[in-house]
Amino acid sequence: MPEFLTLLPPDAARSLLLSNLGTLPDCSEMVDTASALGRVTTFDIFAPHPLPAFPRSTVDGFAVRARDTYGVSDSIPGYLALVGEVAMGTAPEIKLTGGECALIHTGGMLPQGSNAVVMLEYTQSVRPGEIEIQRSVADGENVIRVGEDVSENQLVIAKGVKLRPAEIGGLMALGIQEIRVAKKPRIGLISSGDEVIPPNQTPQPGQVRDINSYSLASLITQSGGQPVFYGIIADNFEMLKVKAAQALEECEMLIVTAGSSASIRDMTADVIASLGKPGVLVHGINTRPGKPTILGVCNGKAVIGLPGNPVSALVNGYLFVVPIIDKLLGLLPNRPRPIVPARLTVNLSSQSGREDWQPVRLVSTIDGYQAVPVFGKSNLIFSLAAADGLIKIHPDANGISAGEIVDVYLMS
Amino acid sequence: MPEFLTLLPPDAARSLLLSNLGTLPDCSEMVDTASALGRVTTFDIFAPHPLPAFPRSTVDGFAVRARDTYGVSDSIPGYLALVGEVAMGTAPEIKLTGGECALIHTGGMLPQGSNAVVMLEYTQSVRPGEIEIQRSVADGENVIRVGEDVSENQLVIAKGVKLRPAEIGGLMALGIQEIRVAKKPRIGLISSGDEVIPPNQTPQPGQVRDINSYSLASLITQSGGQPVFYGIIADNFEMLKVKAAQALEECEMLIVTAGSSASIRDMTADVIASLGKPGVLVHGINTRPGKPTILGVCNGKAVIGLPGNPVSALVNGYLFVVPIIDKLLGLLPNRPRPIVPARLTVNLSSQSGREDWQPVRLVSTIDGYQAVPVFGKSNLIFSLAAADGLIKIHPDANGISAGEIVDVYLMS
Repeated sequence: MPEFLTLLPPDAARSLLLSNLGTLPDCSEMVDTASALGRVTTFDIFAPHPLPAFPRSTVDGFAVRARDTYGVSDSIPGYLALVGEVAMGTAPEIKLTGGECALIHTGGMLPQGSNAVVMLEYTQSVRPGEIEIQRSVADGENVIRVGEDVSENQLVIAKGVKLRPAEIGGLMALGIQEIRVAKKPRIGLISSGDEVIPPNQTPQPGQVRDINSYSLASLITQSGGQPVFYGIIADNFEMLKVKAAQALEECEMLIVTAGSSASIRDMTADVIASLGKPGVLVHGINTRPGKPTILGVCNGKAVIGLPGNPVSALVNGYLFVVPIIDKLLGLLPNRPRPIVPARLTVNLSSQSGREDWQPVRLVSTIDGYQAVPVFGKSNLIFSLAAADGLIKIHPDANGISAGEIVDVYLMS
Repeated sequence: MPEFLTLLPPDAARSLLLSNLGTLPDCSEMVDTASALGRVTTFDIFAPHPLPAFPRSTVDGFAVRARDTYGVSDSIPGYLALVGEVAMGTAPEIKLTGGECALIHTGGMLPQGSNAVVMLEYTQSVRPGEIEIQRSVADGENVIRVGEDVSENQLVIAKGVKLRPAEIGGLMALGIQEIRVAKKPRIGLISSGDEVIPPNQTPQPGQVRDINSYSLASLITQSGGQPVFYGIIADNFEMLKVKAAQALEECEMLIVTAGSSASIRDMTADVIASLGKPGVLVHGINTRPGKPTILGVCNGKAVIGLPGNPVSALVNGYLFVVPIIDKLLGLLPNRPRPIVPARLTVNLSSQSGREDWQPVRLVSTIDGYQAVPVFGKSNLIFSLAAADGLIKIHPDANGISAGEIVDVYLMS
């Protein structure tokens, strides 16, 4: 059983955990692209064909041979024979030869023989069958060439990208109807503590409802994981060990919210140590809230012991659980975390050497956002519900002064 | 039929549209709280009982009568008779009288007769049945009183709040298993244009796949709406009118992506005008991309004509469709939009008087984020897929200089 170690800073604790997580066996699945929003790619995706697949006009105007317009201007216009109109959605049957032009719409396919388009604004219909051209165009002007956007076999979406509406649209443009994505990692959830009851029961004096399983399940869901509930285990080592072993067998990760009392927290550490090697990596983190957080890896799977306090559990869910899910999904760490800069309204003190995370509410003013700390003596979950985000007080600071600009990490 | 109006700035266009949208009939439904992540409340929610429901210790220590500790210190400790331990999860049977204390764990219920807790660190077990107290405590110290977090009937979640993990947890703490939320507004999607084919077909020369229905459907889904596909309509006024009328009947909002050519865009405006009053409110917006955007309201429902260009359609989806969905959901406009401040890497020019939205990629450096514009001649959807967000170039600017700090609006 590991001793209670020196408290690690949160960043070091997270790095230690992540570096002990092995790569997962292939955990991908095929899904319909139209339903793949928020999923993470597991392979580089290359364009099966160029985009556009045919030369297209970017304007409404007249398709021409560029050289037929050289030298023309407002004062010395040129005249081209109008040989027809390019219909949308079909390959034009028109073939231009010298001195000819064809009406074309934005997105239309250039007829053979043409290599540029003169915008409608710089033309005039002077006689039936004849168009006055008032401006010259260069070869390729107002045209997208074949493959100019995406060439055949070009990498269009890398492995490890979370799909947004833009990626879904892009895949559709290429006719990619199905896509291989990371399976949603199953994250087991166990609540422990003799005082904890399911939320659908009425608490008797001394009892409280299970909050953490549900706030963490929501966080897991919105982070791309799949929560699996293993219920509430009383303060009993053998029962907790059996249930935790089952959960770890069936899931890719396990979270135990460890009740409030020190004895249950120690029991959780002992259970993690019993589940596999290397076991407990971090027992206690130099942060508030969340000092009693336990980070472990057992047989290649992350096992996290979170404090029973609902604010500690959820804040440390954002700090530790989300990055692990990101790693399990194979997500590239290249999308920024959304933050909002805001002006702190009051002085915040903190203990030097410890990293604090303070819930704040954002208030919009004409000078930008103000960050108003949400204080709660007992750290009830509703102090987080009243907050828009969290600000970090660095361990080398004794606090932050009113008026300073802080980065507010949004809690989505 | 309305004439082509003076181009409105985007903010004014959005305000005009939103102010013409009436309040919807009650469109709420009951859902399980555990599955209500991301849904929006339609009623104020009040606490059915106080939290905590019993006085709880916030530390591990000894429950005492505060007055029994007055005057004690390290040098002059006091001594109290230990009468038992408070078990977690039950109302203690212990009742303290003068000179007594009881062992209590964090979260435990205070026994009758006690009103404070001395932390374990300031005590010592000197003899069986006797505890040395080295620090005095005030009445209520290290205790949360009944209702100190949330009092009975207190407003805990307002109407119009999008539920996050913290709110889900808070509702569970109160035993609220079901909750009334806004129904997902149905948003009809029609693509028009003779050149557009479904993504599962292979385009012939001159044809392109439908992108916009799918990128916009993804945007609608992640914004809390429910996309309803009405397919691709050829460039035919009567067919478009019939399909649009059906979609508007069945949905709370309709989006027509209007093909690329001017004639189809005008046809879309005519169709919107035919669907109901007041019809077209805005025909053309002073922005790039998205100038041909059409905003209308027909019989109280929003009808939007978006440009066929996939980048214009999606960017203007973020700018106009998302705020309408927010309004249909009754979402309070109090959560900030996630932005990331970043340093622009190159000069960006823009046309004075027009609001530009430029896709940018964010690059992390030791000095913070850099915003690198993603340029695409033809505004292909993959230029958005390569971008993390958008920056706004104000209409009273001629551009933004390299080195300036810009707000990047993240595209989630």
